[in-house]
Amino acid sequence: VSPSALGIHHVGVAVRDMAAAVATYRSMLGCEVEHEAVVPEQGVHAVALGFPGGPLVELLAPTGEDTPVGRFLAKRGEGMHHVAYEVRGIQEHLDRLAADGVQLIDETPRSGLFGLQVAFIHPDSAMGVLVELVEPREATHD
Amino acid sequence: VSPSALGIHHVGVAVRDMAAAVATYRSMLGCEVEHEAVVPEQGVHAVALGFPGGPLVELLAPTGEDTPVGRFLAKRGEGMHHVAYEVRGIQEHLDRLAADGVQLIDETPRSGLFGLQVAFIHPDSAMGVLVELVEPREATHD
Repeated sequence: VSPSALGIHHVGVAVRDMAAAVATYRSMLGCEVEHEAVVPEQGVHAVALGFPGGPLVELLAPTGEDTPVGRFLAKRGEGMHHVAYEVRGIQEHLDRLAADGVQLIDETPRSGLFGLQVAFIHPDSAMGVLVELVEPREATHD
Repeated sequence: VSPSALGIHHVGVAVRDMAAAVATYRSMLGCEVEHEAVVPEQGVHAVALGFPGGPLVELLAPTGEDTPVGRFLAKRGEGMHHVAYEVRGIQEHLDRLAADGVQLIDETPRSGLFGLQVAFIHPDSAMGVLVELVEPREATHD
Protein backbone atom coordinates (compact mmCIF):
# COMPACT_ATOMS: atom_id res chain seq x y z
CA VAL A 1 0.00 0.00 0.00
CA SER A 2 1.50 3.30 -1.07
CA PRO A 3 0.85 6.41 0.99
CA SER A 4 0.82 8.50 -2.20
CA ALA A 5 -2.01 9.50 -4.47
CA LEU A 6 -1.60 8.51 -8.12
CA GLY A 7 -2.91 11.89 -9.18
CA ILE A 8 -6.05 13.92 -9.78
CA HIS A 9 -8.96 11.64 -10.73
CA HIS A 10 -11.54 14.34 -11.37
CA VAL A 11 -12.61 17.87 -10.56
CA GLY A 12 -16.20 18.27 -9.34
CA VAL A 13 -18.23 21.32 -10.37
CA ALA A 14 -21.67 22.12 -8.91
CA VAL A 15 -24.12 23.39 -11.53
CA ARG A 16 -27.79 24.36 -11.60
CA ASP A 17 -28.69 23.42 -15.17
CA MET A 18 -27.01 20.24 -16.38
CA ALA A 19 -27.94 20.66 -20.04
CA ALA A 20 -26.53 24.19 -20.11
CA ALA A 21 -23.40 23.08 -18.26
CA VAL A 22 -22.69 20.20 -20.63
CA ALA A 23 -23.20 22.47 -23.64
CA THR A 24 -20.90 25.10 -22.17
CA TYR A 25 -18.10 22.65 -21.37
CA ARG A 26 -18.35 20.93 -24.76
CA SER A 27 -18.18 24.25 -26.53
CA MET A 28 -15.44 25.69 -24.30
CA LEU A 29 -13.12 22.67 -24.14
CA GLY A 30 -14.25 20.16 -26.75
CA CYS A 31 -14.74 17.42 -24.18
CA GLU A 32 -17.22 14.55 -24.44
CA VAL A 33 -19.67 12.90 -22.05
CA GLU A 34 -18.09 9.66 -20.79
CA HIS A 35 -20.53 8.66 -18.04
CA GLU A 36 -23.86 9.91 -16.79
CA ALA A 37 -25.89 8.85 -13.77
CA VAL A 38 -28.85 10.02 -11.74
CA VAL A 39 -28.66 8.76 -8.15
CA PRO A 40 -31.89 9.75 -6.38
CA GLU A 41 -30.74 8.52 -2.96
CA GLN A 42 -27.73 10.85 -3.17
CA GLY A 43 -29.83 13.61 -4.70
CA VAL A 44 -27.46 14.07 -7.59
CA HIS A 45 -27.35 14.02 -11.36
CA ALA A 46 -23.72 13.54 -12.40
CA VAL A 47 -22.08 13.80 -15.80
CA ALA A 48 -18.42 12.92 -16.28
CA LEU A 49 -16.70 14.77 -19.12
CA GLY A 50 -13.60 13.15 -20.59
CA PHE A 51 -10.42 14.53 -22.11
CA PRO A 52 -7.64 12.75 -24.02
CA GLY A 53 -5.18 13.58 -21.25
CA GLY A 54 -6.80 11.83 -18.32
CA PRO A 55 -8.68 13.37 -15.42
CA LEU A 56 -12.38 13.99 -15.75
CA VAL A 57 -14.58 16.95 -15.02
CA GLU A 58 -17.60 15.82 -13.01
CA LEU A 59 -20.61 18.11 -13.33
CA LEU A 60 -23.03 17.74 -10.39
CA ALA A 61 -26.60 19.02 -10.50
CA PRO A 62 -29.00 18.50 -7.60
CA THR A 63 -32.20 16.49 -7.99
CA GLY A 64 -33.85 18.80 -5.44
CA GLU A 65 -33.14 21.67 -3.07
CA ASP A 66 -32.74 19.52 0.06
CA THR A 67 -29.76 17.55 -1.23
CA PRO A 68 -26.03 17.99 -0.61
CA VAL A 69 -25.46 19.70 -3.97
CA GLY A 70 -28.69 21.69 -3.64
CA ARG A 71 -27.58 23.08 -0.28
CA PHE A 72 -24.11 23.81 -1.68
CA LEU A 73 -25.64 25.82 -4.56
CA ALA A 74 -27.93 27.74 -2.20
CA LYS A 75 -24.96 28.69 -0.02
CA ARG A 76 -22.13 29.20 -2.52
CA GLY A 77 -23.64 29.27 -6.00
CA GLU A 78 -22.27 27.44 -9.00
CA GLY A 79 -18.58 26.64 -9.01
CA MET A 80 -15.87 24.29 -7.82
CA HIS A 81 -17.23 21.62 -5.49
CA HIS A 82 -14.35 19.19 -4.85
CA VAL A 83 -11.10 17.73 -6.18
CA ALA A 84 -10.74 13.95 -6.25
CA TYR A 85 -7.45 12.06 -6.05
CA GLU A 86 -7.04 8.42 -6.97
CA VAL A 87 -5.37 6.19 -4.41
CA ARG A 88 -4.72 2.50 -3.87
CA GLY A 89 -5.57 1.10 -0.45
CA ILE A 90 -8.14 3.76 0.39
CA GLN A 91 -8.90 2.37 3.89
CA GLU A 92 -5.22 2.33 4.86
CA HIS A 93 -4.85 5.84 3.46
CA LEU A 94 -7.80 7.01 5.60
CA ASP A 95 -6.47 5.27 8.70
CA ARG A 96 -3.11 7.00 8.30
CA LEU A 97 -4.75 10.40 7.82
CA ALA A 98 -6.94 9.87 10.89
CA ALA A 99 -3.84 8.98 12.90
CA ASP A 100 -2.26 12.23 11.66
CA GLY A 101 -5.22 14.20 13.02
CA VAL A 102 -6.76 14.98 9.61
CA GLN A 103 -10.49 15.75 9.83
CA LEU A 104 -12.26 13.06 7.78
CA ILE A 105 -15.88 13.28 6.63
CA ASP A 106 -15.82 9.54 5.87
CA GLU A 107 -13.71 7.31 8.09
CA THR A 108 -14.48 4.36 5.86
CA PRO A 109 -15.07 4.46 2.11
CA ARG A 110 -18.57 4.35 0.72
CA SER A 111 -19.97 3.64 -2.73
CA GLY A 112 -19.65 6.63 -5.01
CA LEU A 113 -20.55 7.34 -8.59
CA PHE A 114 -19.27 5.30 -11.51
CA GLY A 115 -18.24 2.26 -9.49
CA LEU A 116 -15.81 4.12 -7.26
CA GLN A 117 -15.15 3.69 -3.56
CA VAL A 118 -14.93 7.20 -2.17
CA ALA A 119 -14.23 9.11 1.03
CA PHE A 120 -14.12 12.85 1.68
CA ILE A 121 -11.63 14.91 3.70
CA HIS A 122 -12.97 18.03 5.41
CA PRO A 123 -11.95 21.35 3.79
CA ASP A 124 -10.69 22.54 7.18
CA SER A 125 -7.89 19.97 6.86
CA ALA A 126 -7.08 20.79 3.23
CA MET A 127 -6.67 24.56 2.80
CA GLY A 128 -10.37 25.14 2.21
CA VAL A 129 -10.75 22.51 -0.53
CA LEU A 130 -13.18 19.61 -0.24
CA VAL A 131 -10.88 16.70 -1.11
CA GLU A 132 -12.18 13.30 -2.18
CA LEU A 133 -10.14 10.12 -2.27
CA VAL A 134 -11.32 7.54 -4.79
CA GLU A 135 -10.36 3.99 -5.62
CA PRO A 136 -11.83 2.06 -8.52
CA ARG A 137 -13.65 -0.96 -7.16
CA GLU A 138 -11.60 -3.40 -9.23
CA ALA A 139 -8.41 -1.91 -7.77
CA THR A 140 -9.34 -2.84 -4.19
CA HIS A 141 -8.34 -6.44 -4.81
CA ASP A 142 -4.84 -5.57 -6.02
CA VAL B 1 -5.28 23.47 -34.52
CA SER B 2 -7.66 21.37 -32.51
CA PRO B 3 -10.64 23.02 -30.81
CA SER B 4 -10.30 20.56 -27.93
CA ALA B 5 -8.39 20.77 -24.69
CA LEU B 6 -5.92 17.95 -24.08
CA GLY B 7 -7.03 17.78 -20.47
CA ILE B 8 -6.59 19.31 -17.05
CA HIS B 9 -3.12 20.82 -16.71
CA HIS B 10 -3.37 21.88 -13.06
CA VAL B 11 -5.73 22.87 -10.29
CA GLY B 12 -4.94 26.16 -8.55
CA VAL B 13 -5.50 26.53 -4.81
CA ALA B 14 -5.19 29.87 -2.98
CA VAL B 15 -3.45 29.55 0.40
CA ARG B 16 -2.32 31.93 3.12
CA ASP B 17 0.73 30.07 4.46
CA MET B 18 2.76 28.32 1.77
CA ALA B 19 4.92 26.27 4.14
CA ALA B 20 1.86 24.93 5.94
CA ALA B 21 0.10 24.22 2.65
CA VAL B 22 3.03 22.30 1.19
CA ALA B 23 3.37 20.27 4.40
CA THR B 24 -0.37 19.50 4.40
CA TYR B 25 -0.47 18.38 0.78
CA ARG B 26 2.69 16.28 1.11
CA SER B 27 1.30 14.56 4.17
CA MET B 28 -2.22 14.14 2.76
CA LEU B 29 -1.35 12.97 -0.74
CA GLY B 30 2.33 12.09 -0.84
CA CYS B 31 3.06 14.54 -3.64
CA GLU B 32 6.36 16.32 -4.24
CA VAL B 33 7.35 19.88 -5.12
CA GLU B 34 8.11 20.03 -8.85
CA HIS B 35 8.49 23.77 -9.40
CA GLU B 36 8.56 26.84 -7.22
CA ALA B 37 8.60 30.51 -8.17
CA VAL B 38 8.11 33.89 -6.57
CA VAL B 39 6.93 36.47 -9.10
CA PRO B 40 6.85 39.86 -7.39
CA GLU B 41 5.28 41.68 -10.36
CA GLN B 42 2.33 39.23 -10.22
CA GLY B 43 2.30 39.31 -6.43
CA VAL B 44 2.41 35.55 -6.16
CA HIS B 45 4.45 32.75 -4.67
CA ALA B 46 3.60 29.57 -6.55
CA VAL B 47 4.48 25.97 -5.81
CA ALA B 48 3.58 23.19 -8.24
CA LEU B 49 3.04 19.78 -6.64
CA GLY B 50 3.46 16.76 -8.88
CA PHE B 51 1.83 13.34 -8.99
CA PRO B 52 2.77 10.24 -10.96
CA GLY B 53 -0.51 10.47 -12.87
CA GLY B 54 -0.12 13.84 -14.52
CA PRO B 55 -1.87 17.08 -13.61
CA LEU B 56 -0.33 19.33 -11.00
CA VAL B 57 -1.72 21.08 -7.97
CA GLU B 58 -0.58 24.72 -7.99
CA LEU B 59 -0.53 26.34 -4.56
CA LEU B 60 -0.72 30.14 -4.74
CA ALA B 61 0.18 32.39 -1.83
CA PRO B 62 0.12 36.19 -2.12
CA THR B 63 3.25 38.29 -1.67
CA GLY B 64 1.07 41.05 -0.18
CA GLU B 65 -2.54 42.00 0.49
CA ASP B 66 -2.98 44.18 -2.60
CA THR B 67 -2.35 41.40 -5.11
CA PRO B 68 -4.79 39.25 -7.09
CA VAL B 69 -4.40 36.27 -4.75
CA GLY B 70 -4.38 38.55 -1.68
CA ARG B 71 -7.70 40.07 -2.72
CA PHE B 72 -9.11 36.61 -3.48
CA LEU B 73 -8.19 35.39 0.03
CA ALA B 74 -9.70 38.48 1.65
CA LYS B 75 -12.97 37.93 -0.22
CA ARG B 76 -13.32 34.14 -0.32
CA GLY B 77 -10.74 32.65 2.04
CA GLU B 78 -8.51 29.72 1.23
CA GLY B 79 -9.73 27.26 -1.36
CA MET B 80 -10.07 26.49 -5.04
CA HIS B 81 -8.85 29.34 -7.21
CA HIS B 82 -8.91 28.05 -10.81
CA VAL B 83 -8.76 25.00 -13.07
CA ALA B 84 -6.29 25.08 -15.96
CA TYR B 85 -6.68 23.13 -19.20
CA GLU B 86 -3.88 22.52 -21.66
CA VAL B 87 -4.54 23.42 -25.27
CA ARG B 88 -2.62 23.71 -28.51
CA GLY B 89 -3.12 26.89 -30.52
CA ILE B 90 -4.17 29.01 -27.56
CA GLN B 91 -4.75 32.18 -29.63
CA GLU B 92 -7.02 30.36 -32.09
CA HIS B 93 -8.85 28.78 -29.15
CA LEU B 94 -9.41 32.23 -27.60
CA ASP B 95 -10.54 33.70 -30.92
CA ARG B 96 -13.12 30.96 -31.34
CA LEU B 97 -14.41 31.43 -27.78
CA ALA B 98 -14.68 35.20 -28.28
CA ALA B 99 -16.65 34.61 -31.47
CA ASP B 100 -18.95 32.31 -29.46
CA GLY B 101 -19.62 35.15 -27.00
CA VAL B 102 -17.56 33.68 -24.16
CA GLN B 103 -16.42 36.33 -21.67
CA LEU B 104 -12.61 36.31 -21.75
CA ILE B 105 -10.39 37.93 -19.13
CA ASP B 106 -7.43 37.69 -21.54
CA GLU B 107 -8.14 38.05 -25.25
CA THR B 108 -4.51 37.25 -26.02
CA PRO B 109 -2.25 34.95 -24.01
CA ARG B 110 0.28 36.35 -21.59
CA SER B 111 3.31 34.90 -19.86
CA GLY B 112 2.35 32.76 -16.90
CA LEU B 113 4.24 30.72 -14.38
CA PHE B 114 6.62 27.93 -15.29
CA GLY B 115 7.11 28.97 -18.93
CA LEU B 116 3.44 28.73 -19.86
CA GLN B 117 1.40 30.97 -22.10
CA VAL B 118 -1.87 31.50 -20.28
CA ALA B 119 -5.27 33.15 -20.65
CA PHE B 120 -8.24 33.20 -18.29
CA ILE B 121 -11.94 32.76 -19.03
CA HIS B 122 -14.37 34.62 -16.76
CA PRO B 123 -16.26 32.44 -14.25
CA ASP B 124 -19.54 33.90 -15.51
CA SER B 125 -18.94 32.00 -18.75
CA ALA B 126 -17.92 28.74 -17.07
CA MET B 127 -20.47 27.80 -14.38
CA GLY B 128 -18.75 29.86 -11.69
CA VAL B 129 -15.28 28.39 -12.22
CA LEU B 130 -12.28 30.55 -13.11
CA VAL B 131 -10.91 28.61 -16.10
CA GLU B 132 -7.38 29.04 -17.39
CA LEU B 133 -6.13 27.88 -20.77
CA VAL B 134 -2.40 27.11 -20.89
CA GLU B 135 0.02 26.19 -23.63
CA PRO B 136 3.63 25.27 -22.97
CA ARG B 137 5.85 27.77 -24.76
CA GLU B 138 7.66 25.10 -26.74
CA ALA B 139 4.33 23.82 -28.03
CA THR B 140 3.44 27.11 -29.70
CA HIS B 141 5.79 26.31 -32.58
CA ASP B 142 4.18 22.93 -33.34
